[in-house]
Amino acid sequence: MIERLGAPLADPIFNQLAIIGAGLIGSSIARAARRRNAARRIVLADHSFGVLERAKALKLGDLVTDDAARAVRGADCVILAVPVGANEAVGRAIAPALGAGVIVSDVGSVKSAVISTLEAVLPGHVRLAPAHPVAGTEQSGPDAGFASLFVNRWCILTPARGADDEAVTMVKSFWEALGSHVEIMSAAHHDLVLAITSHVPHLIAYNIVGTAADLEEVTRSEVIKFSAGGFRDFTRIAASDPTMWRDVFLHNKDAVLEMLGRFNEDLTALQRMIRRGDGDGLFALFTRTRAIRLGIVAEGQETAAPDFGRRASTAEEPEP
Amino acid sequence: MIERLGAPLADPIFNQLAIIGAGLIGSSIARAARRRNAARRIVLADHSFGVLERAKALKLGDLVTDDAARAVRGADCVILAVPVGANEAVGRAIAPALGAGVIVSDVGSVKSAVISTLEAVLPGHVRLAPAHPVAGTEQSGPDAGFASLFVNRWCILTPARGADDEAVTMVKSFWEALGSHVEIMSAAHHDLVLAITSHVPHLIAYNIVGTAADLEEVTRSEVIKFSAGGFRDFTRIAASDPTMWRDVFLHNKDAVLEMLGRFNEDLTALQRMIRRGDGDGLFALFTRTRAIRLGIVAEGQETAAPDFGRRASTAEEPEP
Repeated sequence: MIERLGAPLADPIFNQLAIIGAGLIGSSIARAARRRNAARRIVLADHSFGVLERAKALKLGDLVTDDAARAVRGADCVILAVPVGANEAVGRAIAPALGAGVIVSDVGSVKSAVISTLEAVLPGHVRLAPAHPVAGTEQSGPDAGFASLFVNRWCILTPARGADDEAVTMVKSFWEALGSHVEIMSAAHHDLVLAITSHVPHLIAYNIVGTAADLEEVTRSEVIKFSAGGFRDFTRIAASDPTMWRDVFLHNKDAVLEMLGRFNEDLTALQRMIRRGDGDGLFALFTRTRAIRLGIVAEGQETAAPDFGRRASTAEEPEP
Repeated sequence: MIERLGAPLADPIFNQLAIIGAGLIGSSIARAARRRNAARRIVLADHSFGVLERAKALKLGDLVTDDAARAVRGADCVILAVPVGANEAVGRAIAPALGAGVIVSDVGSVKSAVISTLEAVLPGHVRLAPAHPVAGTEQSGPDAGFASLFVNRWCILTPARGADDEAVTMVKSFWEALGSHVEIMSAAHHDLVLAITSHVPHLIAYNIVGTAADLEEVTRSEVIKFSAGGFRDFTRIAASDPTMWRDVFLHNKDAVLEMLGRFNEDLTALQRMIRRGDGDGLFALFTRTRAIRLGIVAEGQETAAPDFGRRASTAEEPEP
């Protein structure tokens, strides 16, 4: 899949965009916004010295600073691109420097908890328009970002009741400029949907990789060598940023535990089928699940190439 | 990852190789053996009319037949490349036609059950040398196969006590000719190792895809749209061949249930961490699991590209 950004906009959507957090997501937003001319001026802030140095070297912003309050001064849009659990501290730090009417958005994988937090710590004169770009890789940091990360991915907006329409429309236009499709839903529904499409998958991936690492009968070397049997697919998402994912689970506890409950019920049923030798039951499930992947490929959310297109040589080599 | 077969062998390992089953694995063995000149003559058998027609059209063998007994007549090596549960019927069908001293191997993802079955139905004059190439894709059938499927993958041999050394050595040479690394272990240990590196991962992937498909609160369209959050990775292996996987679970029941028990214990602990808000516990696990992926990449069993290299554009595009 080759994903390309469109040509630069004639008129930027924002005059000054402040991005707090210059990791994979924040740095990708900066790159994409620059490429698409979606903001006249881009200011990046990060509290990590190492990240700042890289962001400066990569020329990711017109200004790169460790001072989040300074970064948001004069901005008409602020995007918080920090782990979900850091929003409260960042919100408090920038609150005094936020101008009247400034749009504040975020990129958190959890929405209800983040909205409650931001509503509590930000001044009433800001216009909150939360967002979640459903995109990423297992890598972290400013060097891992790239401009086309959001192209053809979905971005979910979860405006609170009474949110400012213009602010939501501008954030929607911004994400569309970055190549995303935008969908709007309630924060509560978002948290339930993402629990099954993202949070529980990460949890069980982390879990099985942990289980395999702890076995005494099977060595780590064996797990690694024979991982092509399926296990290695799980290790990708189990290599995702630990801070980000710790915060996701702590802040979307209810929806994750609910979906995990369903997963466990179904797994118990599957376990019973194996114990009882119910081949027909297994076959029926395994046939049904094929259809979901076909849907994902058809919707352009996945490559149709076998094995994720991992091996360049799955196409038949020419005869020697 | 580009994987290449070596140049054709000067001397073929087998004179006549019979492959029973022309699916993804059987057809890939035929292609690779032909390319490497690992057998002078290749005969393919399959009981499915559609598969036979494709195998003939693709010129996968010197002879392509629906008669497994005919296929093994005159062969010095027979490889059974059928779902694990089909080995008994195929073994009975070919038994009368197997010459003295013929090597019989297989490719099953389960070894103890297959060995017991084949020892029971095959004549005493055959030399059994079971194998399991740990390679494949989520696709099935002769069109999905390719010659380099086994290159740089591991193939596990599980000779029974008292197995013929020469037969094991020849099967080892054969898989090495197809580009694989070979490891030898007991069938019981194989079944335990593969339960954690392959069978349980498939089971939980099938399970979560089933759970997601059955939700009432989240639509199938939402699951598909927002699958880039992690879920879509699981759909790949949950799109694998249903017959093959039904047979794996029915024939490796004990090891699968044992490893599933470990997985469940660990998942319960993780669930408790989330419920109690134990951020340190979550962070510790999520940090530990990163190391395993690094090991898999370092061992050449996985691409180092982010997101499996799915998106050709993860490298920064040139400035416009």
